[in-house]
Amino acid sequence: MVNVAILGFGVVGSGAAQVLADNAAVIEKNLGERVAVKRILDLREFEGSPFGHLVTHDFNDILSDPDISVVAEMMGGSHPAYDFTKACLAAGKHVVTSNKEVVARFGAELLELAAANGVRYLFEASVGGGIPVIRPMVNDLASNEIVRVDGILNGTTNYILTRMITAGATFAEALAEAQAKGYAEANPAADVEGLDAARKIVILAALSFGTLLSPDNIYCEGITGLTLADVAVAKALGCSVKLIGHTEKVQGRVLAMVSPRLVPLTNPLSGISDVFNGILVDANMVGEVMFYGAGAGKLPTASAVVADIIDIVAHKAQKNVRAPKFEVAKDTDYADFADYACKSCFAFEAVDGAAEKIAAVFGEVETVSADGRIAFIGDMMTEKEADEKIAACGLTLVSRIRVL
Amino acid sequence: MVNVAILGFGVVGSGAAQVLADNAAVIEKNLGERVAVKRILDLREFEGSPFGHLVTHDFNDILSDPDISVVAEMMGGSHPAYDFTKACLAAGKHVVTSNKEVVARFGAELLELAAANGVRYLFEASVGGGIPVIRPMVNDLASNEIVRVDGILNGTTNYILTRMITAGATFAEALAEAQAKGYAEANPAADVEGLDAARKIVILAALSFGTLLSPDNIYCEGITGLTLADVAVAKALGCSVKLIGHTEKVQGRVLAMVSPRLVPLTNPLSGISDVFNGILVDANMVGEVMFYGAGAGKLPTASAVVADIIDIVAHKAQKNVRAPKFEVAKDTDYADFADYACKSCFAFEAVDGAAEKIAAVFGEVETVSADGRIAFIGDMMTEKEADEKIAACGLTLVSRIRVL
Repeated sequence: MVNVAILGFGVVGSGAAQVLADNAAVIEKNLGERVAVKRILDLREFEGSPFGHLVTHDFNDILSDPDISVVAEMMGGSHPAYDFTKACLAAGKHVVTSNKEVVARFGAELLELAAANGVRYLFEASVGGGIPVIRPMVNDLASNEIVRVDGILNGTTNYILTRMITAGATFAEALAEAQAKGYAEANPAADVEGLDAARKIVILAALSFGTLLSPDNIYCEGITGLTLADVAVAKALGCSVKLIGHTEKVQGRVLAMVSPRLVPLTNPLSGISDVFNGILVDANMVGEVMFYGAGAGKLPTASAVVADIIDIVAHKAQKNVRAPKFEVAKDTDYADFADYACKSCFAFEAVDGAAEKIAAVFGEVETVSADGRIAFIGDMMTEKEADEKIAACGLTLVSRIRVL
Repeated sequence: MVNVAILGFGVVGSGAAQVLADNAAVIEKNLGERVAVKRILDLREFEGSPFGHLVTHDFNDILSDPDISVVAEMMGGSHPAYDFTKACLAAGKHVVTSNKEVVARFGAELLELAAANGVRYLFEASVGGGIPVIRPMVNDLASNEIVRVDGILNGTTNYILTRMITAGATFAEALAEAQAKGYAEANPAADVEGLDAARKIVILAALSFGTLLSPDNIYCEGITGLTLADVAVAKALGCSVKLIGHTEKVQGRVLAMVSPRLVPLTNPLSGISDVFNGILVDANMVGEVMFYGAGAGKLPTASAVVADIIDIVAHKAQKNVRAPKFEVAKDTDYADFADYACKSCFAFEAVDGAAEKIAAVFGEVETVSADGRIAFIGDMMTEKEADEKIAACGLTLVSRIRVL
């Protein structure tokens, strides 16, 4: 019997308690051992809940309990989640988490602290909700060099974009729908401005290349500027529009970024709709593999948290279980964004002579027209080259969306 | 340093040697230990190969070598692959394999033998080539009950269907193309008649429900009977056509089957094209997750074989590593196929009065017409009910394709 403590009895925390209770039989069958929740830390009381009697308001009830060997942190936010995690690891308790903010900001230190104390720090639920992606990257792709990762990492924005594409809703209308359905928060900034996705791509970049960038120091563009004219242009060019977290190495240094992208319909990410997430990993031996599923939600995310707990219990007799190592990025570890190269869809005001000016600077490109704009997908070029060409062609840029 | 032997130096076997050599540095970094190929068993000589000097024609050179702790079996076929696997496990050597035939037929016995000898038998590469699916199902979904699995499990048939759908090629033309590209063998029966997919869905069913059915005893329908009229009907109904391996429980017993399916365009499997594979798993907590990638090919499949080797090396100090258990199915473990329920697309000859006869038996359904046939998707019904209704409506059935 393994005793677990839950930190934070919100959506995911209560989901984890439910998964452990409802699926107790299958978990015990898979593991050969029972896993039970012993204590739950939360500021609130939960009198109606079957787990209400386990609630404590004092973290020390958990930290000082030698029977609790695994702590599941699902509080969200940096503090006190980070501080509690450090205390648990230092006390020789394993920690699992769904908290992408803590992993993205403090993952390097916490993995090192776990290793130093002979325990594990697992965070499958921090990226892609219930989708198995972190453990498969660590274990199943261990025979590969990761080349690049592209992910639809935020369900709220994917729902909004799906409604803009399939129902012709404006950004504001689709956001209101998402809020009405509970997919978006009253203050949706972290989702629609890309910060949530930025935290997740920073974690995937660290898994891929060993370097933990700061989510504050990467290029991050949300979807608030996208219009139905952008969607119309995308459709005319045979593409969907998605908010994509992307990481690759540029001149030997790590690039991570978040931005809207035109995704060709031949790319498996193009068909991922509604609140679903997908992570496409390109690795040097296996090629492209994709992991798809519910990127958020109570039980899916809890499923991933409990998978981490099971992983810990299954290996509790083993010393030095293999774990990823993250190095905190120095300034010189960040790629220069000006050197990053991709294709882009450029849309300019469709004034007289626009086609000729575009051809003079961008070469022979196939253009489409929509809503007073003339748009096209240019050749692969660096950010620096793109800025230079935009300036050189002497037209008013209406929008530029990178292409996956 | 861990020494590995390779059994069978064909496409996958030589790929595994290449992955271990080309990615030696990343593997050593991920594992903290070197992995090297010490011997290769094959009947042929490989004089031009950098691995030629490792080749032996005598299995005992491997079996009796105490330095070889892991054997990678990539021979294909049941014999002698099964016999060699048994001998290695009995001698206390771990075995990894890409051989779906051996896993589907003898997996229960071999997993038991491995456990009895304190070693492991891993087979990630036996389903979905390089796609991580078996380890994620065992580890990441361990907190879930598996409800059902649907998979595009054969790249050859998916290529043929993609060409029929996108290029209007007939089955015969698309098969000839697949053969010209090396995707299909000169004798394509195992692919196009569904046997390859049957072996794989039997393995996925055993992972899901613990019961290993025989691939010879499940319903297996290939794609040889599919026509461009079927494709036209599917398109008119907003669907793609895919060869799908499916498993679920029916009245408490295990059903596994292979058949063509209409796949609605909203289903993530519908967009999987060419030789790619995808496995969609429905589990009771996480919901639907999908794993996608190259389902065959030298380096992708070898990537999965080497991932299994890495898994073994990473856990070599641990006793009793958690492993799936398969029970060989008794007759009473098989679901009665007559009780299996799904939706189907029925196509009848479009004679006078056909619509009325269809309405009388199948109720109000929306019909489409193509190529002298009248087709529609009926309500969910069991196989038995479907057969009864087909007989009752007194029309000539041209085709029936189940719907995912």
